[in-house]
Amino acid sequence: MKKYTDINDITNISQTINEAIQIKKTPFKYKGLGANKTLVMLFFNASLRTRLSTEKAAKNLGMDVMCLQINNSWNLEFEDGTIMNLTTSEHIKEAAKVIAQYADIIAVRAFPTLKNKDQDYAETIITSFTKYSEIPVVNLESATAHPLQALADAITINEFAKDKKPKVVLSWAPHPKALPQSVANSFVNMMQQLPVDFSITHPEGYELHSDITKNTAVNYNQEEALKDADFVYVKNWSAYGDYGKILTQDDNWMITQQKLNNAKFMHCLPVRRNVVVEDAVLDSENSIVIDQANNRTYAAQVVLKNILENL
Amino acid sequence: MKKYTDINDITNISQTINEAIQIKKTPFKYKGLGANKTLVMLFFNASLRTRLSTEKAAKNLGMDVMCLQINNSWNLEFEDGTIMNLTTSEHIKEAAKVIAQYADIIAVRAFPTLKNKDQDYAETIITSFTKYSEIPVVNLESATAHPLQALADAITINEFAKDKKPKVVLSWAPHPKALPQSVANSFVNMMQQLPVDFSITHPEGYELHSDITKNTAVNYNQEEALKDADFVYVKNWSAYGDYGKILTQDDNWMITQQKLNNAKFMHCLPVRRNVVVEDAVLDSENSIVIDQANNRTYAAQVVLKNILENL
Amino acid sequence: MKKYTDINDITNISQTINEAIQIKKTPFKYKGLGANKTLVMLFFNASLRTRLSTEKAAKNLGMDVMCLQINNSWNLEFEDGTIMNLTTSEHIKEAAKVIAQYADIIAVRAFPTLKNKDQDYAETIITSFTKYSEIPVVNLESATAHPLQALADAITINEFAKDKKPKVVLSWAPHPKALPQSVANSFVNMMQQLPVDFSITHPEGYELHSDITKNTAVNYNQEEALKDADFVYVKNWSAYGDYGKILTQDDNWMITQQKLNNAKFMHCLPVRRNVVVEDAVLDSENSIVIDQANNRTYAAQVVLKNILENL
Repeated sequence: MKKYTDINDITNISQTINEAIQIKKTPFKYKGLGANKTLVMLFFNASLRTRLSTEKAAKNLGMDVMCLQINNSWNLEFEDGTIMNLTTSEHIKEAAKVIAQYADIIAVRAFPTLKNKDQDYAETIITSFTKYSEIPVVNLESATAHPLQALADAITINEFAKDKKPKVVLSWAPHPKALPQSVANSFVNMMQQLPVDFSITHPEGYELHSDITKNTAVNYNQEEALKDADFVYVKNWSAYGDYGKILTQDDNWMITQQKLNNAKFMHCLPVRRNVVVEDAVLDSENSIVIDQANNRTYAAQVVLKNILENL
Repeated sequence: MKKYTDINDITNISQTINEAIQIKKTPFKYKGLGANKTLVMLFFNASLRTRLSTEKAAKNLGMDVMCLQINNSWNLEFEDGTIMNLTTSEHIKEAAKVIAQYADIIAVRAFPTLKNKDQDYAETIITSFTKYSEIPVVNLESATAHPLQALADAITINEFAKDKKPKVVLSWAPHPKALPQSVANSFVNMMQQLPVDFSITHPEGYELHSDITKNTAVNYNQEEALKDADFVYVKNWSAYGDYGKILTQDDNWMITQQKLNNAKFMHCLPVRRNVVVEDAVLDSENSIVIDQANNRTYAAQVVLKNILENL
Repeated sequence: MKKYTDINDITNISQTINEAIQIKKTPFKYKGLGANKTLVMLFFNASLRTRLSTEKAAKNLGMDVMCLQINNSWNLEFEDGTIMNLTTSEHIKEAAKVIAQYADIIAVRAFPTLKNKDQDYAETIITSFTKYSEIPVVNLESATAHPLQALADAITINEFAKDKKPKVVLSWAPHPKALPQSVANSFVNMMQQLPVDFSITHPEGYELHSDITKNTAVNYNQEEALKDADFVYVKNWSAYGDYGKILTQDDNWMITQQKLNNAKFMHCLPVRRNVVVEDAVLDSENSIVIDQANNRTYAAQVVLKNILENL
């Protein structure tokens, strides 16, 4: 693996999932692999799970880790030819090349604006770091994708799936804030590559980018969609068409124990209880959200391991 | 030791103090003990001494350390059954369980509101992390207690005590801001368990919670109280009765060289010079505040060592 | 080396440069030297290059590193005798001594006010840390100096210099914000000690402190000054005389490919493109700014190595 900015960077998904499950059994087996190698993690946005799981994964491999919370203190310029006499103080060309002097792998988190669709879907930040740093870049959730989450989700489904081909449904749920499409996008991409029966349900108007959904079935009737599901992956996202907008907060879309029936409940977290999903679900044995969170470590570790082996 | 959220988690205080003093002599002796173990430190409030000393202690034991400054960016929900459609974005149930996936020990700093006495004294945050994480929790100063500080203080008194049973006095001192009772509470708890002659002096109205002070003598006359003291531990706190209020800033309560006589001066730091205590005291040989700060490392290290041995 | 707060702490510059170049070839050769030694890095201001390069250097030497972003949350008192009942909550005397309990080396970044010349040029913060901590202090850019940058610059010039004694010119360039004189000061100090033909060019009014410039030639005509230069070091600074002021933003002082001719272009970064220097320069092979950034690691590493050897 030369980078991990979207799930297409994985050449053989089932092999990668199996390798992650092996790593989970003996997480310190490859501790020599990362010796004298440095992971620099850049956060343009806050992070809990992604920060901790990726740092832990890197240290399990023996890497040194340096974390930088960038936030608003560092205004990068991404346009070519700009006369930088206003708010931006450093060009991505210098920034990326400089960080590459101190890192063997760069990991970047940079959320979308949710205001400028073209800019967000161009993935300017993560793409620019890849282009100019000339070293492997790992996506810690970008404007439109969260591939480490999707890999952790795939590992978790693999662990919990019974013999038969499971039915997996991605269901939109209400939320008081406008959220990115990143998690949903990467989950759809991942499910399309796994041996699962996959469909999506959401209110009209919440269609994801057609380049993402492709031929995946979409059902506007949540009750019908969830019928006989083995895994229900729940996530809010703001509209892609009417970009970044909240079109409804209809609480009929909240996931309940009754709707779920015996399906496993999945969510990337953090989750707002009794808005996205009722307490009874999260407190039941059908919730596997903590398993997903745990697998974030091994998703990151298999990615870092494969990148380290290719340095 | 299974956790360290208050000083009652120590089963044998004098043995623990002696072990800390041994560790101080050979701090790197147990560097293998923490191999492949991770301490996650969560700070809801700023930290200097506690952060550095605890991280150093963990690294002396060979642990990996991940620090997260949480501050205002992460609004946790602690109530059961809440419809989380307002400001809180994650429930402590998920937060604690998730962090436990990445940590072998969780350390948490979370100051009191000083507005809601019942909420503060319920110790909701530290208690919830203990309950839901199901892994050992270390208190880096909570709403009502600072047990690592109290252990460092006990180590320091042990080091400086002459043969006889020392007289130790906790004296309130003025301060321009309303401060927690945490340090005072834990110091009182600790002194009650040591072979010392212990009393408290403060202006009327500054009585600590009676569950803390129990039978400890309180003297409203500072001059009388300090007479023949061997150790004077100075600390401001806001009122417990008229909760969180500043009742007086009377500078007659400031500690001076004359009041101190030959007693050792102790303070947890940071300290406001010439408000809490005059320069002459801090700049004299009777001040042992830097020794206290140094012992923070060995207090944390003996705690982490004992927890690691019980994992 | 007992500390590194300004470049005069280097006793033999050419030997130190050569040692840095050796370290660059085998950066992990001295990994045992820093075992069980701790570097505490304190940042009163934001940092990217200095933070990453110094942390990496310390880890290359096997040190533990603890980083504290102090910013506005920690108001230190530096005056003697103050009654601290206002905004300052801890005196540097305690702060420095306490941190020294947890560190073998302290590194500090603290920018100037650019409002109070006497205070800035007294270097109160870095000097106080040196005085009170009683352990080695490393300057990560102070009010008036950036000696790690200057050492990286010297290493870079050494690497790129041909046989002859090179002509090096420090040129002021325009910038929309008032910037410190630190980088320029330390670069001048460094060039005065190297076997180079060194001069400075800037608009009238931008004279640096005469204690810095000494006998170094200053030319107000940029075109004349740059003639036949081998290295052009470009940097904006605010006025020293009319302290902290922007006297001009004249874009005729911007560095262009034409002005540069075949000289190497140097800058400490971050740099505002098409304000300080045009794109064509930064994107050409004559720009060695990334090499400078890379050498920040080895400048820090040779400094830390020499300090560790003297502990």
